[in-house]
Amino acid sequence: MAPRYAPSIRGRLPWLILILEMIFIPIFLFLIVFEPTENNKVYPVFQDVNVMIFLGFGFLLTFVRRFGFSGVGFNLLIAAFGIQWAVILDGVLFHFKEGSIMINIPSVLIGAMSTVPALISAGALLGKVNPVQLVWMTLVEVTLFTVNRWIISDLLMIEKHTSLMFVHIFGTYFGLAIAWFFYHPLLGKNMEKERSQPMSDMLSMLGSLFLWMFWPTFNSVLVPGASKRRNAVYNTYYALAVSAVTAFSFSICTNARGKLNMVHVRNAVLAGGVAVGFSAYLIYSAWIAMTIGFLAGMISTLGFTYIQTCLNSAIQIHDTCGVHATFGLPGLLGGVSYILLISIGDWDNITRLGYQALIGVVCLCITLVMSLGGGLLTGFFLTCKLWNAPKHWKYFDDQAYWEFPHLANKL
Amino acid sequence: MAPRYAPSIRGRLPWLILILEMIFIPIFLFLIVFEPTENNKVYPVFQDVNVMIFLGFGFLLTFVRRFGFSGVGFNLLIAAFGIQWAVILDGVLFHFKEGSIMINIPSVLIGAMSTVPALISAGALLGKVNPVQLVWMTLVEVTLFTVNRWIISDLLMIEKHTSLMFVHIFGTYFGLAIAWFFYHPLLGKNMEKERSQPMSDMLSMLGSLFLWMFWPTFNSVLVPGASKRRNAVYNTYYALAVSAVTAFSFSICTNARGKLNMVHVRNAVLAGGVAVGFSAYLIYSAWIAMTIGFLAGMISTLGFTYIQTCLNSAIQIHDTCGVHATFGLPGLLGGVSYILLISIGDWDNITRLGYQALIGVVCLCITLVMSLGGGLLTGFFLTCKLWNAPKHWKYFDDQAYWEFPHLANKL
Amino acid sequence: MAPRYAPSIRGRLPWLILILEMIFIPIFLFLIVFEPTENNKVYPVFQDVNVMIFLGFGFLLTFVRRFGFSGVGFNLLIAAFGIQWAVILDGVLFHFKEGSIMINIPSVLIGAMSTVPALISAGALLGKVNPVQLVWMTLVEVTLFTVNRWIISDLLMIEKHTSLMFVHIFGTYFGLAIAWFFYHPLLGKNMEKERSQPMSDMLSMLGSLFLWMFWPTFNSVLVPGASKRRNAVYNTYYALAVSAVTAFSFSICTNARGKLNMVHVRNAVLAGGVAVGFSAYLIYSAWIAMTIGFLAGMISTLGFTYIQTCLNSAIQIHDTCGVHATFGLPGLLGGVSYILLISIGDWDNITRLGYQALIGVVCLCITLVMSLGGGLLTGFFLTCKLWNAPKHWKYFDDQAYWEFPHLANKL
Repeated sequence: MAPRYAPSIRGRLPWLILILEMIFIPIFLFLIVFEPTENNKVYPVFQDVNVMIFLGFGFLLTFVRRFGFSGVGFNLLIAAFGIQWAVILDGVLFHFKEGSIMINIPSVLIGAMSTVPALISAGALLGKVNPVQLVWMTLVEVTLFTVNRWIISDLLMIEKHTSLMFVHIFGTYFGLAIAWFFYHPLLGKNMEKERSQPMSDMLSMLGSLFLWMFWPTFNSVLVPGASKRRNAVYNTYYALAVSAVTAFSFSICTNARGKLNMVHVRNAVLAGGVAVGFSAYLIYSAWIAMTIGFLAGMISTLGFTYIQTCLNSAIQIHDTCGVHATFGLPGLLGGVSYILLISIGDWDNITRLGYQALIGVVCLCITLVMSLGGGLLTGFFLTCKLWNAPKHWKYFDDQAYWEFPHLANKL
Repeated sequence: MAPRYAPSIRGRLPWLILILEMIFIPIFLFLIVFEPTENNKVYPVFQDVNVMIFLGFGFLLTFVRRFGFSGVGFNLLIAAFGIQWAVILDGVLFHFKEGSIMINIPSVLIGAMSTVPALISAGALLGKVNPVQLVWMTLVEVTLFTVNRWIISDLLMIEKHTSLMFVHIFGTYFGLAIAWFFYHPLLGKNMEKERSQPMSDMLSMLGSLFLWMFWPTFNSVLVPGASKRRNAVYNTYYALAVSAVTAFSFSICTNARGKLNMVHVRNAVLAGGVAVGFSAYLIYSAWIAMTIGFLAGMISTLGFTYIQTCLNSAIQIHDTCGVHATFGLPGLLGGVSYILLISIGDWDNITRLGYQALIGVVCLCITLVMSLGGGLLTGFFLTCKLWNAPKHWKYFDDQAYWEFPHLANKL
Repeated sequence: MAPRYAPSIRGRLPWLILILEMIFIPIFLFLIVFEPTENNKVYPVFQDVNVMIFLGFGFLLTFVRRFGFSGVGFNLLIAAFGIQWAVILDGVLFHFKEGSIMINIPSVLIGAMSTVPALISAGALLGKVNPVQLVWMTLVEVTLFTVNRWIISDLLMIEKHTSLMFVHIFGTYFGLAIAWFFYHPLLGKNMEKERSQPMSDMLSMLGSLFLWMFWPTFNSVLVPGASKRRNAVYNTYYALAVSAVTAFSFSICTNARGKLNMVHVRNAVLAGGVAVGFSAYLIYSAWIAMTIGFLAGMISTLGFTYIQTCLNSAIQIHDTCGVHATFGLPGLLGGVSYILLISIGDWDNITRLGYQALIGVVCLCITLVMSLGGGLLTGFFLTCKLWNAPKHWKYFDDQAYWEFPHLANKL
């Protein structure tokens, strides 16, 4: 019966993650100390971000009919694992002082947010790689993203919030570059196992709603200053509301039979939040956020309908969860609108305008290069036979990794 | 194949909501400015209310076995849309000053709470109207509810919190009045498609639990004064706990075979929260809240068993989600108990007592007239052929509106 | 048709809970007054704990394929009921002064947390007892746990937080002692009805994730002092993250085919939170919490694989939800590590060290004796024919208690 299954991960996963834990714990022992502050104010928003990461992203990935356990389970694994690594890296690069690293709740929060690119990439690869590969990917991706953040914030002097808002673009293009290595001509051709099921779609919608509801926290939590933070909350809220409405509208327009598509609704409603990520705190009037939300909902839905098919057939990149349309395109829109908005803010000072815009473009380019380049290298590394990658006929199948209550009762 | 489906909404919905967004965005551009405050304290409770609206109400409406996508999806659409309109209206009626409207997080919160009547009405109409009709309904209902609130709080000088607690009564009777127009003799007669399924019942229970858990926030968030707010939290909590216990008890008592009914449990547990909405802040001892919760759980369960059937057969109003027993009857109980409680508070001053009681009765009557009258007019408007209303044999069917992953794999 | 069903609970449950409510309401009327404080700061964490109790535990118990309604429904019933009783008891034992009891939000919070043992015990008994028995169990268990807490905190002078962290150990051994009375040789032998189903497993995972995400609140909410509270949050977070990773690793190691087991993942990820419950606030460096989390994830997974089967066959205790491995063993680990940690803190003072360690051991012994002894007595009481206990062939069946939408459409 063995040959029917994907190669076992027994010889790989347990040892890999145990060894990594054995490395992390001593690092914490020797390097990391708690900052003796008593400020617990950030705790409620910290919890919001955790709900987004573990529940929002986790359930968003449960839509594949026979891959629900893996969707939510592997998300938990790589997030719980990635956060530990991200906290260490963030400490080494930003807070290393006199042989030790001082951490506080905000640094754990930043660690959690730095794990998001890995969760987005995991969405693009959903069903096509095994957890060993996901753990390696998380390790590399969190490292590169933190380095990218260090370049942007320490070398180019961009503030911390903005440097973290590149999560969406970084995660998407890193994931797509890896996905290129795991392409198979049968993918996306209406493979029976890749499809969703009404109930798995509902659970995925649950995840999406949690992301949607707490997105204002994600876009505001690192913004310095209460009044800017409040702006970020407002503007994200309005952008999300408008992008939800737009997603419904364009979903029907682009469908031949005039019907809604759950994939569009579930994902494109988030586009507004992604797109105002960079700029929500500096928008002074809700109509700008609403316009960005409108455009984001539109390009996300159109991206699902037209660009995703094109990626699949022409460039041979199969994006299971549609992260390109959900996070990539709206992220790019957000980057462009951010550059426009800071430029307009310096309209009277033409030198400063040019400089600001230039820096913005440079950040965007660095992120794209780091993510695509890192993704290609990582993808190549993940094709190594050592990781027992699943064959394409075992793609999208929980049974390759999970003991089922009873084989006859599979979903 | 076309005739099997409900008339397409392609020619209606996208344009309707796009045009409305095109109207909203300029209104925000020209009229609305952010208040330059730095108070973000209300943010956590604001999020609680959002969870209730998008997740609580959304999943509460997923119990119809083949109407889950529409339950949660249309709820998201009309809430995201209604909030934008409610903020504009609230601004125009309450905060218009020198050609502009100043908004802050509390005004978005009030906007969100003003959308609740539309969500309740959508529960009564669940499965029988299309999203075009729901959007029109939301537009009218939010307008009338805000006008109703303006009459109560600006003309009759009732405080803001109380004026908003009429959401339950308003939403119920507005929805029932519309439901009268969409009655069909086959409804409620154990139509196969109208029934739930264990898994859809579980998701609905999930929504109900979120409403239940955050109801203390809903009843306290607008109450002025920390000590009154604390009372509102306590009393709502106790009323909910007792109404949950009572719902279990009466659900078994009213069943011929001595079994529990998920419909009772899911809905009647909320009755306590609805019933103490008006008065939670002024109750000085938990036993009063517990007694109101007890009565609310009782009348809600009895309402499901006896009144709902009677509404359906005698008055020809079919209430899909049972909003009358969940929100209507407990809301009326709440109104009556509120009038009693404020009267008792002024027991020594007989003139004032009479006046207070009179004002309370007047508010209740205005709300009933506005909601029933508005509902009848709106219902008539929604029967217009232009909106392509679904025929009764396409009621309760997601496939009329949603592209399914694969027809053969429908739920 | 009647004989096919479990004996009806119609003649028992409604009257039992109505009579108890009739007793509670007058107690609240005559004894309980609100403390006139205006401090609402605790409200957000109070909500976190409510989410854990009603949603987290409720959905955790929905994994049995035909017992989902009962899992989440009876959890709601006994929690809503238990909290009222716990508040009264806590008031009588700790806050009774001059004929009345002053309560505030923290006392309701403690009431809610005191109900957790009953929810854990209900997990061990899931599917084998009816709600009448659960209500009696809750009544006795909440009483004994509060007395246990009173002995520990008032007689042995241990602080409130620590005395409450015995919830896990108390709930587990109380539940196991009762489970001994409801053993049947067919249980656990792969009974078809006892098994889960992919979708019910997903809902259970949802509950587990909510417990996981809010566990830092549970372990920190009663800790006095902001800096200790912050430590408790940090350490619980890290312990949970490591125990999640460890659970994945050992779940594969212990499986013959090298696959993950959803039961391990769902439950053992929580072990870290349970195990640092006692000591999270006094751990000064994350690596200790991570090590405890590592051990907890390990013993919990091993407990599921080896000890649970042994309990079932050798001692004839059938533990439906595996609470022994989820809460019991990690709880004991937590107790032992707590005694070690406070001993190390007093290393230079050998007398004090011995005393502290002794007190710790005494508390642990008292809790074990109270829970096992109380459980045996309660179990004996629950076998009384008066409660119409279900026969073993009606175990794990929602249809014994719930009216189903349509018999033909059961899950």
